[in-house]
Amino acid sequence: MAKELKELTKRADNYSQWYNDLVVKADLAEQSAVRGCMVIKPYGYAIWEKMQAQLDKMFKETGAQNAYFPLLIPKSFLSREAEHVKGFAKECAVVTHYRLKSSDDGNSVVLDPNAKLEEELIIRPTSETIIWNTYKNWIHSYRDLPLMCNQWCNVMRWEMRTRPFLRTSEFLWQEGHTAHATRQEAEEEAQKMLHVYAEFAEKWMGVPVFQGVKSETERFAGALDTYTIEAMMQDGKALQSGTSHFLGQNFAKSFDVTFLNKDNKPEYVWATSWGVSTRLIGALIMTHSDDNGLVLPPKLAPIQVVIIPISKGGEQLQAISDKLSPVINKLRELGVSVKYDDSDNKRPGFKFADYELKGVPVRLVMGGRDYEENTIEVMRRDTLEKATVSFDGIVEHVMQLLEDIQEHIFLKAKTFRDAHVYVCDDYEEFKTRVKDGGFFLCHWDGTAETEAKIKEDTQATIRCVPFDYEQTPGVDMVTGKPSKCRVLIARSY
Amino acid sequence: MAKELKELTKRADNYSQWYNDLVVKADLAEQSAVRGCMVIKPYGYAIWEKMQAQLDKMFKETGAQNAYFPLLIPKSFLSREAEHVKGFAKECAVVTHYRLKSSDDGNSVVLDPNAKLEEELIIRPTSETIIWNTYKNWIHSYRDLPLMCNQWCNVMRWEMRTRPFLRTSEFLWQEGHTAHATRQEAEEEAQKMLHVYAEFAEKWMGVPVFQGVKSETERFAGALDTYTIEAMMQDGKALQSGTSHFLGQNFAKSFDVTFLNKDNKPEYVWATSWGVSTRLIGALIMTHSDDNGLVLPPKLAPIQVVIIPISKGGEQLQAISDKLSPVINKLRELGVSVKYDDSDNKRPGFKFADYELKGVPVRLVMGGRDYEENTIEVMRRDTLEKATVSFDGIVEHVMQLLEDIQEHIFLKAKTFRDAHVYVCDDYEEFKTRVKDGGFFLCHWDGTAETEAKIKEDTQATIRCVPFDYEQTPGVDMVTGKPSKCRVLIARSY
Repeated sequence: MAKELKELTKRADNYSQWYNDLVVKADLAEQSAVRGCMVIKPYGYAIWEKMQAQLDKMFKETGAQNAYFPLLIPKSFLSREAEHVKGFAKECAVVTHYRLKSSDDGNSVVLDPNAKLEEELIIRPTSETIIWNTYKNWIHSYRDLPLMCNQWCNVMRWEMRTRPFLRTSEFLWQEGHTAHATRQEAEEEAQKMLHVYAEFAEKWMGVPVFQGVKSETERFAGALDTYTIEAMMQDGKALQSGTSHFLGQNFAKSFDVTFLNKDNKPEYVWATSWGVSTRLIGALIMTHSDDNGLVLPPKLAPIQVVIIPISKGGEQLQAISDKLSPVINKLRELGVSVKYDDSDNKRPGFKFADYELKGVPVRLVMGGRDYEENTIEVMRRDTLEKATVSFDGIVEHVMQLLEDIQEHIFLKAKTFRDAHVYVCDDYEEFKTRVKDGGFFLCHWDGTAETEAKIKEDTQATIRCVPFDYEQTPGVDMVTGKPSKCRVLIARSY
Repeated sequence: MAKELKELTKRADNYSQWYNDLVVKADLAEQSAVRGCMVIKPYGYAIWEKMQAQLDKMFKETGAQNAYFPLLIPKSFLSREAEHVKGFAKECAVVTHYRLKSSDDGNSVVLDPNAKLEEELIIRPTSETIIWNTYKNWIHSYRDLPLMCNQWCNVMRWEMRTRPFLRTSEFLWQEGHTAHATRQEAEEEAQKMLHVYAEFAEKWMGVPVFQGVKSETERFAGALDTYTIEAMMQDGKALQSGTSHFLGQNFAKSFDVTFLNKDNKPEYVWATSWGVSTRLIGALIMTHSDDNGLVLPPKLAPIQVVIIPISKGGEQLQAISDKLSPVINKLRELGVSVKYDDSDNKRPGFKFADYELKGVPVRLVMGGRDYEENTIEVMRRDTLEKATVSFDGIVEHVMQLLEDIQEHIFLKAKTFRDAHVYVCDDYEEFKTRVKDGGFFLCHWDGTAETEAKIKEDTQATIRCVPFDYEQTPGVDMVTGKPSKCRVLIARSY
């Protein structure tokens, strides 16, 4: 696609516009004809596929199995769990009819009033209800537990304001739903899956996260505890990047799911659910990318290395290609995704800009002089540093560089994040500073009222009580009442 | 799950009931609370994952890339292509509202009449319309072609009579949508993808198929040609197992998708689409399985080898486990999916029956005597043959056996199929014999009237004009009119 590359909006000028521009210009996604729903383009979807492959492996290592449950949920199911219905029954897509018919003029199709459903069906916003209605038939005895299913699917929540990947009416995700014999086992499972998400975020995405537990206000509808990973974007805002819920026996009670324990006595089953979505792609973009385009972690980049020959054509191109060919093969054997771009309908400068925009971690360029001198130019996308190195040992050099970039972008993001986490005990100071972004560790009296006041005054919310922070009691910065611990507060996406 | 295994209905007694029983008893799928929609259970889904992995690899080798397009399609899109709307606008799930609200008594949720959509949205029955509406923005020049996208997703067609995997309202599938600069290239693509499906069916599923082209009546709504693979089930009925469509310029014209050719002149784009679905799991079951349960091809079996120790417990079990352990590791290193079942809460007889039901291709059993004598019992699921062989070299033995089973079940199915393909020129004879199943190669005058008469008289339909059959002209068996070639006729699912 030989369209000219247009300049991205700069982050400093308009961070939000920079993000929207980048999603489109890097060919990740675009708006569809359906309000709030996006088309995920091949390059964006390739990132999702790499994420899926790794997460799926990690889930299976914990003993989870994949399955598939229906897209549509009977409306009455949503009402079964009292809290759940408040959270999910409102903004959702409702199927009311199962047939269209030709219009009277024959030029279009219209609803067939005779094909009205007796009970409306909801496109799943999340699947706890239909899954627990199914688990009822699968669980009889303690020997059937634990039961751990995951599904990769689409879900729909009718959002009024949408942004690609971050908030769309339809999105892709995975949702794990597990059933356990004891409270302790379920709580451990919910935390274990949070750790899986955190490990994936940090080691694969290169995105440092805080792990913690949500306040009651911010809990998943129907959960006793919601655990979260919270990442900091480059504008200092928080992005909730994955959640894991301890659901207690709420869904078991609503859907009457009991098991006979070892003493042959019936008990309600304990539950968890956990999910991450295509929102992770948004987290990836907003953590690492820059004014030149995407910066992708090597472990998730669809193209890890691009190799571009620069020649005066013909014989010279052939010679360069011959020289590069064993390197390409060797890298591919090592599992590296390599693109060799010798297309002659684009200038090198255009190619460079395009692969920078697309965030390809490593670029190799060989020109006539490199060929003569047995050298090659290496550029790393994260720092944009260029170096001309010996062609001998280039494979090892590239392999090491991919590792270095993976590590470097994580450390860079972590350094940035850590420099923007503030301990704050003064509400006036908080109100001023929170506008500029960053995470604030503040004492909170634990009441929903104080939480609401903070939100009203500043738009910031309690993201979580972080796990890895040494806590001492204190006084709430707003009310002066006693506080058991500091919470992480930030504006968020 | 320690429930007792109940006997399957026998194929000879009631083939249809046998199939339904097997799907449930082998833990592949079950009916959900939503009419016509199934839950695909972990064991069934594991087969689908293996199918996906292989097909995805084959698609990518042809140059296709994955992407994701919206679930919901504006109603008006369906009317754009005149033939398409007739085929797909009728039985479909229609979203009319985007919000629920609490009922007046507060005990349930009801449609919010203020949240009526201006234009109804259809849950995709197939995605040609929304994809071609998107391609309009992606295709400008011949350099943007070919464009080859595939998506793995759910689709919905409101079916009145459903059967698990074979025909359900919601099902999982992949749909490839390609755009080309020339008619020839598009026609070649449609046929190439048909060959990919045929290769997958025969080499991975072990299901022999006829490749051919559909009659006009049986074409996909909006296609100029529909290519199909047709498999024969054990009751002699046909199962259409995958289709690939040459769509001409129909969708390009309906959605105004043109490109500038090398002479800088606008032309409409040529299109194909192609898909296979979870129906393939139905084909797999009905081709190979028997009265003891599933028979799965090793290449798609979630568990390829089950190993069961039989001991008097304790020390003996430990000794047997120690002896088996390196074999398990070695098989796993070779990529074989091995289940070692030393659970002590089920009798061996129960385990044997359960793994037979589940179609595990190879079963190894080591008892105390085997241990002493350095032997092991090997059973192959396809023939149920048992042999006691030397423990030395068991890894090689198993690897060879897996290959043999893969080949044997294909040949067995092919022999059965070929024995039930009949050349027939007499309509009275046809009418009598077609009731008993089988494929009939008959001359046809090419008219929709004759086709309709055959269907009305016998419920059999023209499955395709087969490619690999040497054709000579003749006379239609019904009308006596001239016929250019024989067509394959059968009753079908």
